[in-house]
Parts: sequence; structure tokens; C-alpha cells
Amino acid sequence: MTKSPLQIARAQYAPKLPKSLRNNSVVIVDGEKTQSVADQADIEKLFPHTYGMPLLSFEGSDASVELPVANVGVILSGGQAPGGHNVISGIFDGLKKLNPNNKLYGFLGGPGGLVDHKYMELTADVIDEYRNTGGFDIIGSGRTKLEETWQFDKGVEICKELDINAVVIIGGDDSNTNACVLAEYYLEQNTGVQVIGCPKTIDGDLKNDMIETSFGFDTACKVYSELIGNIMRDANSAKKYWHFIKLMGRSASHIGLECALQTQPNICLISEEVAEKKQTLGAVVTEMANVIAKRAANGENFGVALIPEGLIEFIPEMKTLISELNDLLAEGHDSANEFKATPKADRLEWVANHLSDASSVVFRSLPAGIATQLTLDRDPHGNVQVSKIETEKLLIEMVEVKLAEMKEAGSYAGSFSSQNHFFGYEGRCAAPSNFDADYCYSIGFTASVLIAQGKTGYMSSVRNTTAPAEEWIAGGVPVTMMMNMERRHGHMKPVIQKALVELDGKPFLAFAAKRDEWAEMTSFVYPGPIQYWGPSEVCDLTTKTLIEERK
Amino acid sequence: MTKSPLQIARAQYAPKLPKSLRNNSVVIVDGEKTQSVADQADIEKLFPHTYGMPLLSFEGSDASVELPVANVGVILSGGQAPGGHNVISGIFDGLKKLNPNNKLYGFLGGPGGLVDHKYMELTADVIDEYRNTGGFDIIGSGRTKLEETWQFDKGVEICKELDINAVVIIGGDDSNTNACVLAEYYLEQNTGVQVIGCPKTIDGDLKNDMIETSFGFDTACKVYSELIGNIMRDANSAKKYWHFIKLMGRSASHIGLECALQTQPNICLISEEVAEKKQTLGAVVTEMANVIAKRAANGENFGVALIPEGLIEFIPEMKTLISELNDLLAEGHDSANEFKATPKADRLEWVANHLSDASSVVFRSLPAGIATQLTLDRDPHGNVQVSKIETEKLLIEMVEVKLAEMKEAGSYAGSFSSQNHFFGYEGRCAAPSNFDADYCYSIGFTASVLIAQGKTGYMSSVRNTTAPAEEWIAGGVPVTMMMNMERRHGHMKPVIQKALVELDGKPFLAFAAKRDEWAEMTSFVYPGPIQYWGPSEVCDLTTKTLIEERK
Repeated sequence: MTKSPLQIARAQYAPKLPKSLRNNSVVIVDGEKTQSVADQADIEKLFPHTYGMPLLSFEGSDASVELPVANVGVILSGGQAPGGHNVISGIFDGLKKLNPNNKLYGFLGGPGGLVDHKYMELTADVIDEYRNTGGFDIIGSGRTKLEETWQFDKGVEICKELDINAVVIIGGDDSNTNACVLAEYYLEQNTGVQVIGCPKTIDGDLKNDMIETSFGFDTACKVYSELIGNIMRDANSAKKYWHFIKLMGRSASHIGLECALQTQPNICLISEEVAEKKQTLGAVVTEMANVIAKRAANGENFGVALIPEGLIEFIPEMKTLISELNDLLAEGHDSANEFKATPKADRLEWVANHLSDASSVVFRSLPAGIATQLTLDRDPHGNVQVSKIETEKLLIEMVEVKLAEMKEAGSYAGSFSSQNHFFGYEGRCAAPSNFDADYCYSIGFTASVLIAQGKTGYMSSVRNTTAPAEEWIAGGVPVTMMMNMERRHGHMKPVIQKALVELDGKPFLAFAAKRDEWAEMTSFVYPGPIQYWGPSEVCDLTTKTLIEERK
Repeated sequence: MTKSPLQIARAQYAPKLPKSLRNNSVVIVDGEKTQSVADQADIEKLFPHTYGMPLLSFEGSDASVELPVANVGVILSGGQAPGGHNVISGIFDGLKKLNPNNKLYGFLGGPGGLVDHKYMELTADVIDEYRNTGGFDIIGSGRTKLEETWQFDKGVEICKELDINAVVIIGGDDSNTNACVLAEYYLEQNTGVQVIGCPKTIDGDLKNDMIETSFGFDTACKVYSELIGNIMRDANSAKKYWHFIKLMGRSASHIGLECALQTQPNICLISEEVAEKKQTLGAVVTEMANVIAKRAANGENFGVALIPEGLIEFIPEMKTLISELNDLLAEGHDSANEFKATPKADRLEWVANHLSDASSVVFRSLPAGIATQLTLDRDPHGNVQVSKIETEKLLIEMVEVKLAEMKEAGSYAGSFSSQNHFFGYEGRCAAPSNFDADYCYSIGFTASVLIAQGKTGYMSSVRNTTAPAEEWIAGGVPVTMMMNMERRHGHMKPVIQKALVELDGKPFLAFAAKRDEWAEMTSFVYPGPIQYWGPSEVCDLTTKTLIEERK
């Protein structure tokens, strides 16, 4: 395998651990008993064995403790996030420290590997190839949901065969919810298999009082901010383009907010705010056009706008429109057949005539290309594929129309040329920053301690993360503590509460206090690429979001 | 101005100079008299004063030399490239070393600033804000071409007013050609204003025996390779997407080739090879589809393909098609009016019927969206806007059609899902790598020495660049030496020969020797982000292209 000089040098990096994990052994201190964030009675009923467990924190001890051999299986679930390999090497090193005969197995291709009995042993040779690297390629990931009893039972089979005492599931909110369902079932069935979760997602929406951040968010935001900063410098040099940049992250706007705090763009839309204000698409467009016009009046016909990927679904009228389209064009409905029988040239008009009055107005306001796309590209269930909507191009087209109107009315006299970008895949598998390398390794190491102490239904937790790593606080949080009941596919389900951007939270307020200045003045900041060596303030700092939240 | 931690720390970096520039003063050693690369008689006739000058190399001297005050004007010309600010700080420091009373002026917004007398003095305070940063925002850039005598005369006016002895033009091949025309004219007119060029372009196509590389190429390719590597890691983790990545660079494929050498993709198209082999668009598509099918047969339904931005113009049949379309739809032609009078739904058919037989076949083979774009988006001269063609999407659509045919025929049994990307603006204004920071600073410093020695019509040259910086060889190259005569807009003109990828050159051969292996096996390399600190083999190495060329 050919490796780049950075890959080779970076393999030698020894991630920093919290003090409590650097001693000979760990003593677990039970904290208070916990309750779920909401719907306590419902959650307790669904999780009789794993509800109400105490918070756990670790203290280092000099005692040498002999522990029996424990084998562990690890699973990567869902989308990639920088640092997954370090979670696994943290688990591995933790297990080997507990007992050199402990073994670590990786289930291949995501949760499906547990069900289908696809696995490999992760030996030191394998682990050493992946330390401090990005990607999930060590064992692959997958999106199979562990939700059914037969899947759980198949899982036990392979655990018994390999003498596995515990399974670690590295995933986002849904995967950790399922990890807890699995933990509960394995306890109830007395299988002797523990389940521990680890909080992963670049989206930043898996966090709460006990989980300060999910891993990967730091690195991904740094990569996006590097690119945004480079584009800003180009915009400010060429002085002729508006760059509309869409950022990955389906529901929450944490990535956009963090990148805005790092780079100070002229515009950054926050989906949660658009929803809270019940803004229409037209209102969003007008707001953008006004910023563009104001800058043009200052002679600056350039700028940078950040757009969260999930925006469309947060605009109430678009949500309604999409839901109506899903009904109107659902496979098998009479209306869908009628639509198909309509000549192509007349279809947009046909659709507009079959929507509610309000939705019809919205639909007619869309550029033809986007309107067509909404009626054509559907997922296997016949639903509009919201993730395929090129929001950045939609906004450019509508802003162009708006600016033309404003020019006509005499309220805009600039020129508008645009470039569009979408950043997502560029950041999900970047090699982890020092912060993520340390954090992930600590999360993994913590998981091994929770396992050794017989814990199940816990999420690995490392807190106080804006302090230097040795002051981080490692421990465990009962997954049930983060749950509430939500409607999913028509049924009430226990799920981990998703953390959206809080409009009264410190990161948003810090942004809101500055955005008008950033809109008008060119206040760009150029973060540059992630540095692994160099001054600590350059290479060890974590996100502005975390720093603001913990101020 | 808010600055990122990296901006603050990086401002302290002291670029490394060649040994000859570190002494008290410089002695210039005349080398051999030079000739232009071709068309010697024509070039000599056009450049009677600046033709045939000797190569110059520098030697350091301990002598302290008192030189009269010299004021210099500097111009940034054309597209941004990382390191422009370091060229300027190199000129500044060089001038101040020669005589602390020397002044540096920046002409604003490109060559137009010289003509329109827009300028600012670049004092130490200004320069210090921009050391080791990306972008051209210190004085801005522009695309005005200095070609007319009245422009030259306006330039002399402002030079006289500000007591400017020399103008440094930082630009690509065209800008340096014009710099030489200006030098010749100023000599002939006995204005006393010298002109020095500096070789800039991320495209990598301004190079020859004496100019080993143009600045910015190293940094831009490293940024693109970082992103390509991250996407490769994602592709190899998710194992479900083919990523088609278009890379900026209008004519030559140096960027694609360099990125391929750094990252080992499954496919990298080289425009010069496509032209040499006279490949059709269909042949290119088939070649890509065959690689995809071969990987699918190995169970790998994912991969990465690199596509040079200029590809379309190197495919002979596409070049012909575009030229026919330019004639057919030229503003004012009867045929263009007939086209406009044709109902939209019938226009593609109308166009196909009005092309030559060969071009008609090509046109009909294009996806409807692209065909429509070719007939609609035109520049102010009525020409097809080749740079707006989304080549990456065109190839994806055509590959999909080809794979469907192959599936039908039983020669392909995989699944093909794609993502498309275009990387350009992400790299042009990145903060320069250590190599570019050093190289640019040395280029600028060298320019100041050439000026002090009364030289004109020279390009600043720093060679032996794969050795450590102190062994670099600084000097000057007569611009006329790099010229030949080429047809431009119907007239023969003296221009600097553009360096395309040489198919018998070492970088291409190194790629060609490995590409079949890279196509089939997953051999991705992950270069990671540019590092400014850390092991020298990580942060000081330059491009694979340069290393191969100088092997």
C-alpha cells in the first residue's frame, strides 16, 4: 500500500487520554440516578432493565487489577465521520491494557455484519494500519437498522460462537437508540452480552448535557471552513462572484453555524431560525437579495453565502408543498397516472392546478428546472427526494429573478455573477484533527472500561472537552437518559432527542450579534487547513460552537 | 480584522532564500546568449532590443554595495494563484535591502491600474499584513491586456510621476508575453522604465528548461489532492459511489496529472492524450465504462475519476462540433434567426439537421441537457461557452447510457451511483505551501536584484527547486527565449510557448505505467491537508511532477 508522507508521519501520533485513563486501573464512581429528558413513564416502561441507571465517572487508581478475558465486537453504523478508526484503536488499546488476551472483532459493513455473521478479528497489525486515519474502511459501515428481535437473536448466536461479551456500536442518534433497545433485550434475555454506544456524526446533532459533542464534527467543520476561507479569499481577490455554498447535514444547521463562526461569511442561513420565523421561500430569497444589494451599493459585487443542506424541509410552505406532491404523485394513485398521461410540456401546469391554493403559488414561484425535478425524481416509496434538490442553485435562480425586479424598481444597481458549491464528501473522511483523534481514542478507551466493569445500555462519555485532554472527564451515560417519545412513520417511538440549533443558545447568539456587520462589511476569516503539528493554539483548538457553549 | 490562529502564527514564517540571495550583495554572471525556442528570425525582428540577451545567474558577495534609490511598481495579472503576496513581499524586502529609501507601489486591479493610474504605496505595515497569505487581495488583479501603445504611454506617465524605474508583472504566459512587448517598447522609446516578469499560474503550463515551475501550482494541486484523497477514503468506506471530479485548468492537464500521481485514482483523463489519440467522446466514455465494469466484476461498485476542465476542446470531434455551432448560431446570421424562430421543442432536431453529418452524429449522442446548453449559453461574441459545459455531468450521463447497453449485452452486472464535483476556487487562493511561500518570495527577491542591475525583458527565474532552498539557483531568463509565433484571432503573434503535458515526459510515463493497476485495484493514497510545521518530508516537499521531471 502506497502511503503519503503525512499518512506515514501521522501514524506515529499518540492520542492524548484523560488523566483517569492513564493510571494502572480505573475506579468507577456512581453518580445520581437518571431520568429520561421527557416521557419518563413511557421510556421506563419500554426499558425496565436499563432505565434510571446512574451516571458514571472514572477515577484513576494505582492498583493493578487482574480481569478475566473479555472479547468485544465493534460496529460502525451509518455515515462516515472522521475519527472512527481512533475509536476502534482506543477500544483495542483499552482492552489489551485490561488483559493482553482480550480480543477485538469487527463486524463488517455495519450492523448487518452482526446479523449476517460477517466479521474479522482486529489484531495489532490491522489496528496499526489505521491509527489516526480518516474513513470507516477498516471494517466498513452500513445503514441496516437493528430493530427486530430476529436480528438481535442472530447477533447473540455469533457472540456466543466468538465468546463475545460485549458489542460496541459507533453511530448517530438512531443507531444509539437501537443500541439501547439491543442492550435492554440482551439483559432481558439474559444473554450475557453487553452493549455500549459511542456518539458519532459530523452533523453535530447528537449532543446534550452529558455528550458535549459527537466525534467528527470538529474535523468536518474544519475542512469545510478551510475551503470556505479559500473561496472567500478568492472572492475578495477577484471581486466578481457571489459563491453560494451548500453544506452537508440533513436536519440541523450546526455545521453551517460553526463554519460561519469560523469564517464570517456575508450570509449564513440557519434552518431552525427560518422554521421558527415561519419564513417563506420568497422571504428567504428577499433577505439574501437585500444583502447583495447593500453590498453592491458599497461597490462590492461579491460575497459568500452558506446554505444548510436541510433548509428546504424547514421552510413551512415547502414542507407542505412536498407533502402534497408526495400524495398527488404517489405510485398507484389515480392522480399519479393522470400526471403520467399528461404531455410533458403541460405537466407543471397540471401539477400546479392539482395543488392547494397556497402550494400552487409556491410551486409556480419555483424555477422550471427545480419544479420539474420535484415532480420527477422520487425515491422507491414515491416520495420527493429532498436531498437531491440543489438548494444552492434554486436560491441562485430565485435571487437572480428578485435582483432583476429590484433593478427594475431602482433599488439595486449592481451586477450579480455566481458560483455554486456543495461540500460534504470532502469532510466526512478527512483524517481526524488532533481534537478528534484524542476525543475518539478516549471515547473508545472509555468504552473498554465500561465493558470491563460489566456495564450495558451506556454511552461512552468524555466531557470537559474545552480543557486540555488530561483534564477531560471520562465516564458513562445511560442512553435512556437522552430519550423521549417521538412519532416516526406513524408510531410513537423512544428515540434520542435530536439537538437542533438553539436560537437562544450561545453559539447562535454569538453569530446573530455579528451577522449584520459581516453581511455588509467584508470580514472574512481564513482558517486554513487542519494542522497536526505546530503551535497548540493552531493545532489543538476545538470548535467555536463548543467553546461558546461552555463559556 | 479578525484573524484565524493559523493566519496569526503563519505570519511569522520567514521564507527560505537561495544562498546567493542571503549575502550582502549579488554579482550577476552572464551566461550564454539566447535564442527563441522557434521562429528566431521573426521574434528577433519584433524584439530588436530584448532579443538574444544572455541567461543570468546570481552569485552572493560579501561586498557592501551602495545603490541609488529605485522605485518599483508591481502588477498582479490574471487569475489568482497561491503565493502572489509572497512575490510582492520578496520584491519589497529585496528593494529595502538594496536601499532602505527604495519604494514599492502596487498598481490596483491588474494591468488596468497602470493605465488608469490607480495605485497605492506598499509600505512595511501593508506588506506585513499579507506575508505568507493566499489571494491577490493586497492590490487586486485584473484581466486587462497590455497590448496597445496608448496603454504603454499612459503607463510611462505614471511611472515618471512616481519616479518608478521598473515595473514587475506577475502573470501567466500571456501576461509575460505582454510584459516583454512592454519592455521592448520602453527600451525603444528610451523611457528608462524596466520591465520584469514573474511566472504565475496554477495550471502549470508556464514552464520550460529555465522556468521549472510556475508558482501556485504546488499549493493548488496539494489542496485538490487533499480533497480528492478525502473523497477516495469516503468512496472506499461507503463503497457505493463513483465520484467524477473535474479539476480547474483550461488547456493543459498538468493539474490532473499531478493529482493523479499524488492520489492514485481509478481513472484520470489527460486531454493531451485524448487529442494525440484523436479519441471520440464515445471512445472516452467507453474507456471509462470498461474500467467501471471491470471493478464491478471485482465487486467494487465505487471509484474516483479525475477529469481536466479543458477536456472537451481536446476531443477533435467536439472541437469541430463547437466550431460549427459557433458559425451556425452566430448573432446576426440568418441561420441563428431561423433557430430562434424554431419552437423550443424542435430546436435540437433543427440544429442536428443543420450540422455536418459527422457533427450531427456527435450532437445527437449528447444528453439533451448538455445539447440544449450548447445551443443556448453563449458568450458576448456568440460563441459556445466551453468553460460552462459541465463535463463531469456530461460524462456521468453518457457513462450511464453506456453501462445500460453493456448490462443489456451481458458485459456489465454492477450498480452505478455517482457524485460529481468541480474543484477550482478551493485552491487558487489557499495560503501558499512552504514550497510556494519560499519559491514566490525568492522569485520576488530575484526580481528586485534584476531591477537593481538595470535588467529589462527578463523573467525572474529560480531553478534547482527539488533541492533544499539554499541550493536553489536564482537568476534571469530573457522572455524572448521562451517565445514562438502562433496564430491568435487570425494573426500570427509572438507568444510564450504553452507547456502542455508531454506524452513522452517522465510525469506522464510514471502515471501511464501504473494506471491500469490503479484502475482495477483500489490503490488510493491520502495526502491530507498542507502542513506548515512538522517533519520536513511532510511540509517541504514539492510536486511529484517536478520531482519526476528532474529525476
